[in-house]
Amino acid sequence: MGCCHYPPVIEGCDSAFTVDTSRITFGRGCLSEVGDRARALGMKRVVLFSDARVARLAHFDKVLQSLRAAGLDVAVYTDVHVEPTDQSFLDAARFASEVKPDGYVSLGGGSVIDTCKAANLYATHPADLLAYVNAPVGEGRPVPGPLKPHIACPTTSGTGSEVTGITIFDLLSMEAKTGIASPALRPTEALIDPDCTATLPGEVVAASGLDVLSHALESYTARPYVRRPAPARPSLRPMSQGANPWSDLGCREALRLMGLYLERGVKDANDAEAREQLMWAATLAGIAFGNAGVHAPHGMAYAVAGRVRDFRPSGYPDDEPLVPHGMAVIVNAPAVFRYTASASPERHLEAAGHLGADVRDATPADAGEVLAGRLVHVMRAVGMPNGLGGVGYTGADVAALTEGAFPQQRLLQNAPREMTRPVLSELFHQALRYW
Amino acid sequence: MGCCHYPPVIEGCDSAFTVDTSRITFGRGCLSEVGDRARALGMKRVVLFSDARVARLAHFDKVLQSLRAAGLDVAVYTDVHVEPTDQSFLDAARFASEVKPDGYVSLGGGSVIDTCKAANLYATHPADLLAYVNAPVGEGRPVPGPLKPHIACPTTSGTGSEVTGITIFDLLSMEAKTGIASPALRPTEALIDPDCTATLPGEVVAASGLDVLSHALESYTARPYVRRPAPARPSLRPMSQGANPWSDLGCREALRLMGLYLERGVKDANDAEAREQLMWAATLAGIAFGNAGVHAPHGMAYAVAGRVRDFRPSGYPDDEPLVPHGMAVIVNAPAVFRYTASASPERHLEAAGHLGADVRDATPADAGEVLAGRLVHVMRAVGMPNGLGGVGYTGADVAALTEGAFPQQRLLQNAPREMTRPVLSELFHQALRYW
Ligand SMILES: NC(=O)c1ccc[n+]([C@@H]2O[C@H](COP(=O)([O-])OP(=O)(O)OC[C@H]3O[C@@H](n4cnc5c(N)ncnc54)[C@H](O)[C@@H]3O)[C@@H](O)[C@H]2O)c1
Ligand SMILES: NC(=O)c1ccc[n+]([C@@H]2O[C@H](COP(=O)([O-])OP(=O)(O)OC[C@H]3O[C@@H](n4cnc5c(N)ncnc54)[C@H](O)[C@@H]3O)[C@@H](O)[C@H]2O)c1
Repeated sequence: MGCCHYPPVIEGCDSAFTVDTSRITFGRGCLSEVGDRARALGMKRVVLFSDARVARLAHFDKVLQSLRAAGLDVAVYTDVHVEPTDQSFLDAARFASEVKPDGYVSLGGGSVIDTCKAANLYATHPADLLAYVNAPVGEGRPVPGPLKPHIACPTTSGTGSEVTGITIFDLLSMEAKTGIASPALRPTEALIDPDCTATLPGEVVAASGLDVLSHALESYTARPYVRRPAPARPSLRPMSQGANPWSDLGCREALRLMGLYLERGVKDANDAEAREQLMWAATLAGIAFGNAGVHAPHGMAYAVAGRVRDFRPSGYPDDEPLVPHGMAVIVNAPAVFRYTASASPERHLEAAGHLGADVRDATPADAGEVLAGRLVHVMRAVGMPNGLGGVGYTGADVAALTEGAFPQQRLLQNAPREMTRPVLSELFHQALRYW
Repeated sequence: MGCCHYPPVIEGCDSAFTVDTSRITFGRGCLSEVGDRARALGMKRVVLFSDARVARLAHFDKVLQSLRAAGLDVAVYTDVHVEPTDQSFLDAARFASEVKPDGYVSLGGGSVIDTCKAANLYATHPADLLAYVNAPVGEGRPVPGPLKPHIACPTTSGTGSEVTGITIFDLLSMEAKTGIASPALRPTEALIDPDCTATLPGEVVAASGLDVLSHALESYTARPYVRRPAPARPSLRPMSQGANPWSDLGCREALRLMGLYLERGVKDANDAEAREQLMWAATLAGIAFGNAGVHAPHGMAYAVAGRVRDFRPSGYPDDEPLVPHGMAVIVNAPAVFRYTASASPERHLEAAGHLGADVRDATPADAGEVLAGRLVHVMRAVGMPNGLGGVGYTGADVAALTEGAFPQQRLLQNAPREMTRPVLSELFHQALRYW
């Protein structure tokens, strides 16, 4: 049921919220709809994006065959970099500029879908890479017009990138992740086939599932839209507009499904029911955060992932060190929610309840501890590292992590409490170790 | 919480569902965003649709001023017929064809928004009125391409027409309502300002609120999508695709809000909280039924409204007899749900619980009685007529009502149990009187 009531609007703040999403098709086997749907969108010549590992799976052949059977001319790009970088975005954009397709199809996790969005953007509206990147890291220039149609087919139960107007990459020179946010980036359609996740290593289900869980938690606890300064013009209202009654619905359901199915889906690749429900939770959380915005755990994650030294988690490509996105997020989460709970104790407690905690006797003053405790319980159950220490950081890194996270103002301002440099530093300290 | 689990797909049935909706802006005062949004959609010359009563309200001036302040050239059409007819659709379409606008704005209840959709359709893709009308009444020809952008601003907490691809009218020669269903009809944007409902007579809040309640109940209990025969091509999947996990979410929340706020909103025009929540429920139910479909209560309502003799309800224009849409729907509902309960007792019971019934000791065998009883309770609380008898029908009309309802196959096939002529006749009989 939950907290549907929003406080009255404060003078100068926004009094409405705007929601938008991609057309979504969800269901086992729906990957084979891609050819018909691409044609219905008027595509004739498409680039199919994927990464090397996904391109070796049966899902890839299914998509390729469906596109060809529909009479489409298909160019294939499978060099997507897992956890994309500025360099890998540029490579993909160059390929797209040469092929000049009239439509895009992406098959993969967030790395693939994000790369496809970037390729579509820079091939359609050429510019320097930093032109459209969120300020202050980039110039934050608005995307000048619509992109080519894009059908996104996620293969991880994770990012929700198939329904958001966001693309994320690692800016190597800055040692931090950053991104581009524009409604124009949102894929035209999402084809979400839970059968794709049968081949996912349990470690990827765990990390991407905790990304989902944090999308839902962050959107649910974000600064309410009625506390965000009103935009100069209503049509400029940002996608990161804060918690709202629409995103609340998707968040609650996603949290509930995570509480029921995450452990099962991580531990047993044959548990088709669990993996299907995790995929659905990922979609719901994607729709929610795409219209509410995430906050500190994600903002901090961009530094955690960007400054990685020698962490090589199992289940992921091992040719270079990386902290998978969901892992980089969740290691911050218990510390953050312990701090933000006082802004909306009832929401924090309710979220803990959806995740399976017993909250019957909890008081508002307990909210932070109860939610943090539940997160730690879930992290341990699915084999997450023990905080920042578990992915290779020590107290000596906190200053650099803080400097890396602080520029993520688009996210930090969406938090329900102030995220100054000293606060971030304290949160990173507390995130070093949880058990 | 609820019934998230769907039965396995049957051979030949559909295995996926597709959801789509308009961009939505919701919030008090957001009507003043219309000018900026119209410009952002590229509109320069618009027709503003309304009806004579709404055109006299302050909401109308607000919209007109906002459009003019944004530099738009505005033609005004306020001759919309409440409960539109084939004739009133044609008049509106003729006006639009003469003005040749590059965009449409509608301000009013379902009557206005539906008329605007029809005018946009026939002005953009001229054809005989029956060409696009659902078969078997019309030819069911597919809409050949996109329409001009349309911003729909609802002023009743009712139809959800602002987010659906449906338009309904009274085909006078047939004495029954019918409609057109196409994704192309869905408005580009919906601007939903709950402040509009402050001027609504309590009777309109009641009737349109029960339309909402029935949207949610019908979509929640509709034949599940996995029991509907698969379409010839996936891109032809109908909007009336049956209950699905997406529509379930909106239905549950809409039912819960109806249970909490309908009586309050009907009885007190100054209860801004209740009227705001009813508006939000209408939006959620609109999104849900626009992607799931309604069934028998709506199918039967089209005959009930179409064959009206001399019923003139207070709160509505009194120049001619009419059964307001929501009233025409809800008089059938208790009889229908008593019959459909055996198809999914747990959903029927859960729905009764959301509406405020005490279902703790109810067994599946009680589901039909419990839900029907709760509906009758709500109907009485908000002054609805006592079944079909209350709007002027007798047992002698049942045969004609059955003949009027039976052609509504698009809706009847979406019911969870078979709706043959004998079944419909029996349901109309049972709907004659409830207390
Ligand atoms: N755009 C957004 O809204 C958004 C949101 C959150 C995260 N992200 C970004 O998305 C990226 C993370 O995406 P992700 O978590 O989906 O993982 P991913 O795309 O990085 O993939 C992780 C690994 O799983 C493999 N894999 C993917 N699907 C598989 C399948 N079905 N079977 C077997 N192996 C499979 C990949 O090859 C890769 O090795 C990060 O770059 C993150 O910053 C974007
Ligand atoms: N397109 C769809 O998806 C859909 C769904 C359900 C119903 N419908 C159709 O919608 C129509 C019913 O629409 P409705 O229930 O919204 O009512 P309505 O548009 O018929 O309006 C009812 C009365 O209320 C008045 N009114 C409207 N807003 C007002 C306000 N803010 N203040 C004072 N008076 C106001 C109108 O002038 C009218 O007299 C029917 O024709 C029905 O078939 C369409």
